[in-house]
Amino acid sequence: MKAAYYQGKRTVSLGESILHKPGEDEVRIHVAYCGVCGTDLHIFKGGMDKRVSIPQVIGHEMSGEIAEVGGKVRGWSVGDRVTVRPLHPCGTCPACRAGHAHICYNLKFLGIDTPGAFQGSWTVPAHTLHRLPPDLPFDRAALIEPVAVACHDVRLGEVKSGEEVVVIGGGPIGLLIGLVAASLKARVLVSEVNPFRLKLARDLGLEAVNPEDSDLADWVGKRTGGAGADVVFEVSGSAAGAATMTQLVRTRGRIVVVAIFGEAPKVDLFRFFWRELRMRGARVYEPEDFDRAIALSAGGALPLDRLISARKPLKDLQAVFEQIESSTDLMKVLIDTRGE
Amino acid sequence: MKAAYYQGKRTVSLGESILHKPGEDEVRIHVAYCGVCGTDLHIFKGGMDKRVSIPQVIGHEMSGEIAEVGGKVRGWSVGDRVTVRPLHPCGTCPACRAGHAHICYNLKFLGIDTPGAFQGSWTVPAHTLHRLPPDLPFDRAALIEPVAVACHDVRLGEVKSGEEVVVIGGGPIGLLIGLVAASLKARVLVSEVNPFRLKLARDLGLEAVNPEDSDLADWVGKRTGGAGADVVFEVSGSAAGAATMTQLVRTRGRIVVVAIFGEAPKVDLFRFFWRELRMRGARVYEPEDFDRAIALSAGGALPLDRLISARKPLKDLQAVFEQIESSTDLMKVLIDTRGE
Repeated sequence: MKAAYYQGKRTVSLGESILHKPGEDEVRIHVAYCGVCGTDLHIFKGGMDKRVSIPQVIGHEMSGEIAEVGGKVRGWSVGDRVTVRPLHPCGTCPACRAGHAHICYNLKFLGIDTPGAFQGSWTVPAHTLHRLPPDLPFDRAALIEPVAVACHDVRLGEVKSGEEVVVIGGGPIGLLIGLVAASLKARVLVSEVNPFRLKLARDLGLEAVNPEDSDLADWVGKRTGGAGADVVFEVSGSAAGAATMTQLVRTRGRIVVVAIFGEAPKVDLFRFFWRELRMRGARVYEPEDFDRAIALSAGGALPLDRLISARKPLKDLQAVFEQIESSTDLMKVLIDTRGE
Repeated sequence: MKAAYYQGKRTVSLGESILHKPGEDEVRIHVAYCGVCGTDLHIFKGGMDKRVSIPQVIGHEMSGEIAEVGGKVRGWSVGDRVTVRPLHPCGTCPACRAGHAHICYNLKFLGIDTPGAFQGSWTVPAHTLHRLPPDLPFDRAALIEPVAVACHDVRLGEVKSGEEVVVIGGGPIGLLIGLVAASLKARVLVSEVNPFRLKLARDLGLEAVNPEDSDLADWVGKRTGGAGADVVFEVSGSAAGAATMTQLVRTRGRIVVVAIFGEAPKVDLFRFFWRELRMRGARVYEPEDFDRAIALSAGGALPLDRLISARKPLKDLQAVFEQIESSTDLMKVLIDTRGE
């Protein structure tokens, strides 16, 4: 079996997948698909060279089948179809003690802080496993991880049926947030500047607007009788998004910060005071978000096929990174890890 | 009876209090004391000339006794001792319809958008009245309004017994937030740079630290075993406060924005994401906050006398404004509105 190794300097090379015999609390998985995440691209571009261990197999949005089970693992067998929640918390830090293990102060993220899933054979702790239902194919199942991010964001945003939701930023996570919110019968508006993403959002059944063409605050005001949106998701990570988000929400409306801001933007704290706005950050997921993501994906409530732009073999990973970087019309690319 | 009129251009002059006969839903009050608020000072300095109607009587932190009752008013009688919740919402805007009348989109703030209480006779809508208990003297009762602000802030901050609370800014509202939180058996730390306020905070039984002398994040880290505070109140309105607040709270900790920020500061949204922080703005109060403030003040749980720096006659209001502006050792000044 093969593996794609990040070698630093924007280079990925094909090599052998090393078969790590699982420890007593681990399982070894035959990976089927692994999706390319924005974080993987960030690693490819050298943005996390201090954190990864070059050469390293990266990747964490995967599906596969258990190939080998450690001695103390209960409830899992060879052949079980699974996906992995790629978080390994320390269990002892203040966050873990407070019940927030998913944002552990010493969190190991599998595929970043440890080897990842762009390879045929992957050994992980058994506590990270989630079972795939029989009717969920491996390709769609490789999207469970980003769907779980969206489920976490929507859950922390407390989105309810009939609420007005604005998503600033229509990339994979933004669109998934829109779809998950729409599955709860919220009224969703996506704000996005890229024409491909705008069209895709509309094809997915979401209302979408280009804030460079229309005044977003006006648009939201008209939709809501002047009240403002119930929930705004900031998924753009841009100064413009941070400036806009506070203008869109109603009194005591909720803002969810999903994006990773490289720089601290200006935020209208007067508006927070004036309208008693609420804001919270949302990062990765908890086990229940994976459960919800699997149920939504298996049930067909989400048109996940529409988000898969391409399926490529492992040997193409370098080219895929370059393509994602330069193109404006790719959503999710899956790597088939079963061959070369 | 006399009144102090704001005349614009940093000028207050003494004149007659005009006895407005109450409308059918109104009462006329003989005002006893009216406290000087930061907003009053802001008006005196010309900061709200577009909003007030010069010449205007301002002031809204008051106590007094009903002198005359409108025809349709039920439940109130001449001689009743009262304080006023100085908010008059429109009742029809989206905020009012959502149950957030205290932050009505068309809110009239009595004493800013209408005549205020720096006068002997004041006519107000009966719906704004709160009854004073017999054992609460008029001078302490004039502090009910700022205590209600603090009760609102602490309630929205969901402060619980045993929690670690940091208050950034030790002015009147900051200290009252500290005292109200301490009354719930939270562990309170006040951050303040002014030596007079630092000493007063300590005299009031609150722990207090000067962030220019000590690293506040270190201090909070040591108090909380590295976890961070449960709740931070930002009451300074400064860029430094906005930069510090996100560094002090634990995973999913709460930040309450109490201060009025004149400029949008930079806010560490990465930290919001990374630690799943929560933030909400808090403005004025709701009726239950006045009820709570009255109960706390009457019960003697709050050392309100220690916050009263001086009691002055109406004719001194101009001098009082100038004194507050230039001094660093005044907390709350009360104006006795019963004479000149």
